[in-house]
Amino acid sequence: MTPEQISFAARFDGISGSAIREIFKLLAVPGMISFAGGNPNPKALPGEELAPIADRLLREKGSVLLQYGATEGYLPLRESLPAYIEDSFGVKAAPDEILPVTGSTQAMDLMCKALINPGDGIIIEDPTFLGNMQCMKLYQARLIPVPSDDDGIDVDALEKAVIKEKPKMIYVIPTFQNPTGRTLSLERRKRIAQIAEKYGVAVAEDDPYRDLRYSGEALPSIKSFDRAGMVALMGSFSKVISPGLRVGFLCADKTILRKCVIGKQSSDVHTALLNQALVDTYLREGRLKPHVKEICAMYARQLTAMKKGLSSCRGIVHLTDPEGGLFIFAEMEKGFNTVDMLKKAVDRGVAYVPGTYFYAEGGHENTLRLNFSMSSIDEIERGCELLNQVFGG
Amino acid sequence: MTPEQISFAARFDGISGSAIREIFKLLAVPGMISFAGGNPNPKALPGEELAPIADRLLREKGSVLLQYGATEGYLPLRESLPAYIEDSFGVKAAPDEILPVTGSTQAMDLMCKALINPGDGIIIEDPTFLGNMQCMKLYQARLIPVPSDDDGIDVDALEKAVIKEKPKMIYVIPTFQNPTGRTLSLERRKRIAQIAEKYGVAVAEDDPYRDLRYSGEALPSIKSFDRAGMVALMGSFSKVISPGLRVGFLCADKTILRKCVIGKQSSDVHTALLNQALVDTYLREGRLKPHVKEICAMYARQLTAMKKGLSSCRGIVHLTDPEGGLFIFAEMEKGFNTVDMLKKAVDRGVAYVPGTYFYAEGGHENTLRLNFSMSSIDEIERGCELLNQVFGG
Repeated sequence: MTPEQISFAARFDGISGSAIREIFKLLAVPGMISFAGGNPNPKALPGEELAPIADRLLREKGSVLLQYGATEGYLPLRESLPAYIEDSFGVKAAPDEILPVTGSTQAMDLMCKALINPGDGIIIEDPTFLGNMQCMKLYQARLIPVPSDDDGIDVDALEKAVIKEKPKMIYVIPTFQNPTGRTLSLERRKRIAQIAEKYGVAVAEDDPYRDLRYSGEALPSIKSFDRAGMVALMGSFSKVISPGLRVGFLCADKTILRKCVIGKQSSDVHTALLNQALVDTYLREGRLKPHVKEICAMYARQLTAMKKGLSSCRGIVHLTDPEGGLFIFAEMEKGFNTVDMLKKAVDRGVAYVPGTYFYAEGGHENTLRLNFSMSSIDEIERGCELLNQVFGG
Repeated sequence: MTPEQISFAARFDGISGSAIREIFKLLAVPGMISFAGGNPNPKALPGEELAPIADRLLREKGSVLLQYGATEGYLPLRESLPAYIEDSFGVKAAPDEILPVTGSTQAMDLMCKALINPGDGIIIEDPTFLGNMQCMKLYQARLIPVPSDDDGIDVDALEKAVIKEKPKMIYVIPTFQNPTGRTLSLERRKRIAQIAEKYGVAVAEDDPYRDLRYSGEALPSIKSFDRAGMVALMGSFSKVISPGLRVGFLCADKTILRKCVIGKQSSDVHTALLNQALVDTYLREGRLKPHVKEICAMYARQLTAMKKGLSSCRGIVHLTDPEGGLFIFAEMEKGFNTVDMLKKAVDRGVAYVPGTYFYAEGGHENTLRLNFSMSSIDEIERGCELLNQVFGG
């Protein structure tokens, strides 16, 4: 017998890898202006700053950082995270309510591992982050999309869905959402915490973009309104320090966290210690705030250029109005098909991601996601002109 | 509702965390001689050597290494691994048959993710590595223990079990096995590759200790006899460079690897790039071989001292005879209960792990696993004397 004849696990039924990844393969052309990705700008990655820190950590603490560590995380990082989490998310958490993870993608994986049996429901915003939808599907969850508007997920529809579908989890990206760039309103944040407690459904609050705010006032996290312990906050240093380091955290009630720790033991034993120590040092030495301030100033200019460029773009009937993050989401006139138009756009030298991929049940072919963090102001201006040509026919 | 009332996923039924971890908590006493762990010796961790490499990598390649990477792995590492794998394992593999993973624990997790539905059988050696048994249990696999002797797993019993139980996978640690230190014979390696092909069962070959050989001749891996592509080789740099970096690899047929890549997308997106680049540089600059030679010389002395110390230890009727690795396994006279005796041993200042924990169905209370890598020659001699006192009553 050969591997082609293997009957793989049922969790892969209907999973074919990511459509977006196929798009990315089209983009390896010199000069392509890509609004398709979601990466931090290379200028936002503090290689020069981290180099001497890594050198020092390995010299001074090599025997600890290169050794096996606790699944629960590198203690100095667990001890430096509470101040960051309180300052940024408005959540008071003790070190033993925080689990450093291998990117917040792993936090989602561990939450599903802890909670989801095949067929269990997870409520998601429609549209939402593709990667975590795939995670849920690999746990054979039943995805229950709930519509969202410019204030985020519709909480009345959410409550009705909770009553009807009895889900195990609500997954929400409250701040500068992927793909829409929208932010959940304060009132809705409170409502979700209440719904979680009232109906006994866990919330996975995925908040990786919150520090990338360019205007407006920061809102407290859903977790900050969580009296019952049903909200698990998933944070990431991918957007503000480095995605390549793979360090994020899960901040949750101890009972939930304990299951995630046991799950993590056989996922990767622990998150790499050098990486945890780099983030810890970055936090302790007060480097994060000035770095975030600097990259926010850059991204703010890019977002402004993108909004301006798209405002005169033919065919667009609605643009979201992000106050931060990496994405803006456009709705075109009915009849536009952004999947069909993508090839034409790429031929002209500009790329985006069709919005349909972010909807649990597809459709919405007249929408698209645009990223501005990877392009210069000049590229953004030219890219929007090219889009205008494509959309104008 | 509160988290205490949550009905967690069924995969946690019967999972309570690791008994070994409870033992380790007993050991945080100054002066304790611990034969319980399985860590590399702190002297074997090349912190001074890696520090300037990390510094250079972050300065010169920071914009790549701190950015998102491909799930398939950091290309330079994928390109440097084939020479290492051929040299060490006797396996010719192309870069696209190799997936860098976040420690070989993740390789096991991805193999189960790819292959195991609840109730699917996995044949394991009895006894075997506790951590990966927990991984299999979290995938709700049916563990099928097959006895082993001084030549490794009994392949006749293995073939009978394959015919009877129709398992999805065979899990085997062929070289300096954990917990026994035994090495699977050449003939049995060939047989397992044949059985895999004949009956269409995948093999997860877990071979993290193979480079730690102190005497005798290296044997080719099972994968080197794999004509059909049914054997997946899981390798690790944890024992020869650093466990804290969390870098291993999975070398497998492309069809199997593809499922593992999709599974890894939502596990942690990719293994941290700095960590992959550190291992890549260590390999490319020819640093691994002299380093392994050096640590093998140290471990060889420790193993010799351990064998000598145990040879005169009362109550031991059989000792395995490892030619490498980190462990030796002892069988005591019937009636000895190493679980009961552990407290007494710890009170005297020496610790080990009762062998019963490594058996899928328990029993074998007259066995114990002893690690020698973490103790000095002096500590090994004194520790064996203390064990002799404990075992002598």
